[in-house]
Amino acid sequence: MALSLTILGSNSALPTSDRYPTAQILRVSERFFLIDCGEGTQMQLRRNKVNFNKISQIFLSHLHGDHIFGLMGLISTFGLLGRRNALHIHAHEDLKGLLEPHLNYFCTDLPYNIEFHDLTYDEPTIIYEDKKVTVESFPLSHRVPTCGFLFKEKPKQANIRKEAIKKYDLKVREIVAIKAGETFIGEDGNPVPPEELVIPAPKPLSYAFCSDTRYYRRVIPIIKGVDILYHEATFAHELKDLAKRTSHTTAKQAATIARDAEVGQLLLGHFSSRYKDLTPLLKEAKAVFDNAILVRDNEMYVLE
Amino acid sequence: MALSLTILGSNSALPTSDRYPTAQILRVSERFFLIDCGEGTQMQLRRNKVNFNKISQIFLSHLHGDHIFGLMGLISTFGLLGRRNALHIHAHEDLKGLLEPHLNYFCTDLPYNIEFHDLTYDEPTIIYEDKKVTVESFPLSHRVPTCGFLFKEKPKQANIRKEAIKKYDLKVREIVAIKAGETFIGEDGNPVPPEELVIPAPKPLSYAFCSDTRYYRRVIPIIKGVDILYHEATFAHELKDLAKRTSHTTAKQAATIARDAEVGQLLLGHFSSRYKDLTPLLKEAKAVFDNAILVRDNEMYVLE
Repeated sequence: MALSLTILGSNSALPTSDRYPTAQILRVSERFFLIDCGEGTQMQLRRNKVNFNKISQIFLSHLHGDHIFGLMGLISTFGLLGRRNALHIHAHEDLKGLLEPHLNYFCTDLPYNIEFHDLTYDEPTIIYEDKKVTVESFPLSHRVPTCGFLFKEKPKQANIRKEAIKKYDLKVREIVAIKAGETFIGEDGNPVPPEELVIPAPKPLSYAFCSDTRYYRRVIPIIKGVDILYHEATFAHELKDLAKRTSHTTAKQAATIARDAEVGQLLLGHFSSRYKDLTPLLKEAKAVFDNAILVRDNEMYVLE
Repeated sequence: MALSLTILGSNSALPTSDRYPTAQILRVSERFFLIDCGEGTQMQLRRNKVNFNKISQIFLSHLHGDHIFGLMGLISTFGLLGRRNALHIHAHEDLKGLLEPHLNYFCTDLPYNIEFHDLTYDEPTIIYEDKKVTVESFPLSHRVPTCGFLFKEKPKQANIRKEAIKKYDLKVREIVAIKAGETFIGEDGNPVPPEELVIPAPKPLSYAFCSDTRYYRRVIPIIKGVDILYHEATFAHELKDLAKRTSHTTAKQAATIARDAEVGQLLLGHFSSRYKDLTPLLKEAKAVFDNAILVRDNEMYVLE
């Protein structure tokens, strides 16, 4: 699978026994990114058999307890397991000062380093990049400074066709050039059509995470065309005034964002615990944007 | 039921998906006491349908993360649910200073008060008392200051027999006196045998919690004869050197404490996550003290 999202927690501030507070694991291009870290994250990671050592980057959208109270337990457990590689935490600048007294008290002699990276809240910013993936933060609008995150695979190279190597007796430097998109001239002096030489590169995949936020249309150009959008849908639209007052989004509003941003699929989450039955939220979302689903804890959503 | 213990978490420092870090709810004489508060406690309380408002006293044995990392989430959730009644937290004196910056940041405007009560670690001390129950802390021996807790029902009064009220035409003050144990003289001038007047008071029940600690025989006189003893059994006895080094107890040692303290039943918990199969721990414990069981998360142990 090229991209998968495992929901570790999908509830809003008041967790229930089967909907934990916000946390999720995105796997993309063989990287594992932890997004938010609500209470119980480490147990949910175990439940979903995620290898703890694969997690090196944690992205925390904002400093509300239901998005970070699992952090100390996770850090402590990583230490007890003898982790050596650094852990990078991307979060609001206040986090370090809040965490340090607890780290010094509860996690003496951690065998690995924690590196804090302060988020900014003015404009979209690339906060992580490697050979295959970029991660961008972008401002949301909540009661405290809050970021969404956009994960994008970098454009991939086309794969050379084995039969073309034989047919044209391609040298390594020619293969590299063809994969990079250069025109190849055959012995007859004419360009060879690319489709005869290469299997086109798979489309780079992308995922956007928007939680928590009021209905905030400024994200639309930023997340335009992503394959999967996770958007908070704390309330049904009949509670739109409460949503506004608490800086949250209704399911209908989340679907409107998804439609106008022309995303591939909408995952709805961060539900208020008042809803025993979430189908009204799904129904109102699907009326606006059909390819919408309600996430469930411990489910994996895969994009091939 | 007169006394019940619900296990919210029974693992040691590294929780798994089905064994959470230490927390338990003791219900005795209609009081609900929370003992330790590992990560995930609030979700486990919901899973076990415990009414949050019934919890007013929290007893924290020591300040290791696996015994307290659920506290912030619980406090925050109590606030979001509009709790009004004070929450009493009995813990090491350092807790308040550690928690306050987080409370000020994450739990502004809590609608209830938190009262911190500092534990002492020199000798058994009554730390809570009401009409029906006393709670006593007593020193354990671990890597940091640690207390066990002893919960005891106060002696109850006998119940007067309805037929005796009729037969002897008892007045209210006579009933009160008989229930308090005074001798009642019949019309013939002779004392009436108590068994003709009263149904004897049920025996007061008691529960002792011992986690975490090295094998520590000084607790024996303190917990002598309790109905239920929960004792940590982090390791099997073949790892007794590791147990000693880490200030933990083996299952065999826990059973030895139970036998020598002549307790009614031994509940073993706080297992190292190295054990997929805990039957060797049970076997070695039962060889010393037969009425021993391994606790499981989300199980309730009842004493009638």
